[in-house]
Amino acid sequence: MEEVKELPGGICAPRGFRAGGVRAGIKAGASKRDLALVYSDRPCSSAAVFTRNRVQAASVIVSREHLEKSGGRIRALIANSGNANACTGEAGLAAARRMAALGAEKLALRPEECAVASTGVIGVPLPLPLIEAAMNGLAASLCAGEAGALAALEAIMTTDTRKKQGALQCRLPAGHDIRIGAMTKGSGMIHPNMATMICLITTDAALSSAMLDQALRRAVDRSFNRLTVDGDMSTNDMVLIMAGGAAENDPIETEGKAYEVFAGALETLCVKLARARARDGEGASRIITVTVEGAASEAEAAVLARSVAGSNLVKAACFGSDANWGRVICALGYAGIPFDPALVEIVFKSAEGSIPVCRNGAPLPFSEAEAKKILSQEEVEILIRLNRPLDGSPDDPCDGPRDTGPGRASAWGCDLSYEYVKINGDYRS
Amino acid sequence: MEEVKELPGGICAPRGFRAGGVRAGIKAGASKRDLALVYSDRPCSSAAVFTRNRVQAASVIVSREHLEKSGGRIRALIANSGNANACTGEAGLAAARRMAALGAEKLALRPEECAVASTGVIGVPLPLPLIEAAMNGLAASLCAGEAGALAALEAIMTTDTRKKQGALQCRLPAGHDIRIGAMTKGSGMIHPNMATMICLITTDAALSSAMLDQALRRAVDRSFNRLTVDGDMSTNDMVLIMAGGAAENDPIETEGKAYEVFAGALETLCVKLARARARDGEGASRIITVTVEGAASEAEAAVLARSVAGSNLVKAACFGSDANWGRVICALGYAGIPFDPALVEIVFKSAEGSIPVCRNGAPLPFSEAEAKKILSQEEVEILIRLNRPLDGSPDDPCDGPRDTGPGRASAWGCDLSYEYVKINGDYRS
Repeated sequence: MEEVKELPGGICAPRGFRAGGVRAGIKAGASKRDLALVYSDRPCSSAAVFTRNRVQAASVIVSREHLEKSGGRIRALIANSGNANACTGEAGLAAARRMAALGAEKLALRPEECAVASTGVIGVPLPLPLIEAAMNGLAASLCAGEAGALAALEAIMTTDTRKKQGALQCRLPAGHDIRIGAMTKGSGMIHPNMATMICLITTDAALSSAMLDQALRRAVDRSFNRLTVDGDMSTNDMVLIMAGGAAENDPIETEGKAYEVFAGALETLCVKLARARARDGEGASRIITVTVEGAASEAEAAVLARSVAGSNLVKAACFGSDANWGRVICALGYAGIPFDPALVEIVFKSAEGSIPVCRNGAPLPFSEAEAKKILSQEEVEILIRLNRPLDGSPDDPCDGPRDTGPGRASAWGCDLSYEYVKINGDYRS
Repeated sequence: MEEVKELPGGICAPRGFRAGGVRAGIKAGASKRDLALVYSDRPCSSAAVFTRNRVQAASVIVSREHLEKSGGRIRALIANSGNANACTGEAGLAAARRMAALGAEKLALRPEECAVASTGVIGVPLPLPLIEAAMNGLAASLCAGEAGALAALEAIMTTDTRKKQGALQCRLPAGHDIRIGAMTKGSGMIHPNMATMICLITTDAALSSAMLDQALRRAVDRSFNRLTVDGDMSTNDMVLIMAGGAAENDPIETEGKAYEVFAGALETLCVKLARARARDGEGASRIITVTVEGAASEAEAAVLARSVAGSNLVKAACFGSDANWGRVICALGYAGIPFDPALVEIVFKSAEGSIPVCRNGAPLPFSEAEAKKILSQEEVEILIRLNRPLDGSPDDPCDGPRDTGPGRASAWGCDLSYEYVKINGDYRS
């Protein structure tokens, strides 16, 4: 793959995109921005992944409608924080449609070219008059470059403690440099099945909507869907990508080298943001990477890794820097994936070193002090080798050849802290 | 059903059972009992339900073996706390067998008539010499009545803050009074799929092992399997029932009125202990009952109720007495069971009253102060009506006939508190 270079500028790093954000007053009492607009100067291909929750916010329903109705040609997003517009009935649906129409009107687009996203408290009517009143200012706030990207990002943040955005550039085989930018919000309600409340990705590459959709699904599956903070899947989750084509490459319409370069770069960016989200998990003091090796498939490895990363007991042990590997093997055991416990090997790793704690499913002697030092770091990895026997493996699989083939996956999570409980004990107040 | 009367005496309330407990020193530094023995003076029918975790403690493996080998004739249990004897390899398995043999020897039973249970930290070798040294004292501690029951119960407790036991008496149709007693330990690692670390049930009714097994599975499914504290399923979970027959009833060998009386009483006792366990959830300040009405079946209602009771966000909201019903409907939405969100009705209830917060999937106006008062009680119920339309239902299903048929189930959980994180952040220290 061509070298990938990080860029500043977030969603405005790709050429042809502008963004802005203002304070509409939806977040009561706050002086923060709460309404964002992102616009592509050029017509776009687009694709999206939505929450699989049976209860879907009005913004999810309307954005899916618009994606279909426009034939994958979304080229603007209007998004608010402070109100999820979920469980708000027919009135909520009408409000989401009106919000999209307001954005489209300002940008001289058809309504179905504008997607809409909302995040915040569920079950409270969306204050549409505040949004209407803010539209002139919102449209005027649109600008290119980092300033626009940051204004939009700030306007969709809720309990986030960090700004989570990124951008990168890579070269297609024919020589075109293409850029991909992304921003995401969400630190709570992050679930393996759909880790995002709102994630917007922009690119100046030219692709068909079909190839964009394929690349997006693969990247989301290997990044946000590997993330677990508290196990809850939101009603509002959405990942949207818009491709404007300002890079002037030959449009990518089939699989092949150019597609692979694009899809690989997209995955890299999504993994980066997923990790940033785990790091920003509500109340999190450290990020946990759980890696499973030697499963029968990547999908099975991912299920096992997520089960460990999602265990409250593992998360609480990590908060206490406690090398309680019994909870790790216990969480593997209820993941519903077959494996032989008697072959399992577990290693705790961090910048301070690595320490094997379990081999052949049984304890290894280790220094508690050293384990504590390793587990006290901001980034901790739990490495699990299933050691499925290969032909000719010796009795002790840790000593001989083992299956380190394609059945490998990482999942990300964070520890469970006092702060998590505090933040979520009275979110609405 | 005949009237059910509560009795004191726990597992020793049924005639013909003796129990005891001593301090063997397995729990380092503690002056508490950590080794328990329960014995039936008469041969027993027996049945058990074990953890479905793929990683199973040696005690689970050995007890299952003994149940099979004895043909459902387990009549003693030897149990320890302070060490789970899980992930301890072949040596652990040999230790569990030896522990059962030691108990059997003292009681002049065949080894397979003795079950074994362990609870505590995973991955540490079981200190068998301590158990051997304590055997004489343990056998001598056996006694009938409440004292024996309490000694055994104390010896299996770990992070439990309350003693969880119960007993009841009911009359079979032919006039025999039968008794059922139970004790349980476990406040953490409690999962819907198997809510028990250790639960022992005794009865002086006479039943075949087959009918005992059938009654046990039904009772466990409607009690411990409806319980969720932190979502983790232990490697050591086990529910064992022994029926000695001292009540001299005609042995229950088929379904019928006598079986129904017994099975109903068993379910009542199991539900009581399951609720006691939720109340004693690690760090819990209140017990939450989630009731779902109007599902297509009891099984579907149970899945929905458990999804809500198990949501970290719902649990944290309950800790904060926050009427955040959006999280309730969100947790329904990812349970994987079809329902129409637009018909859902949610009511928060407690001893302080009840307050409807959502109707037809949309918010109802309610007093935050009143909601806070209701949610501040020690026992809170979240009542969810799915309001599946029946033939001839009007448009607003809350006003007309709705399906309140058999698709109803409750699940129990507790709130998520600072204490939970504290207890589990450094369990091994």
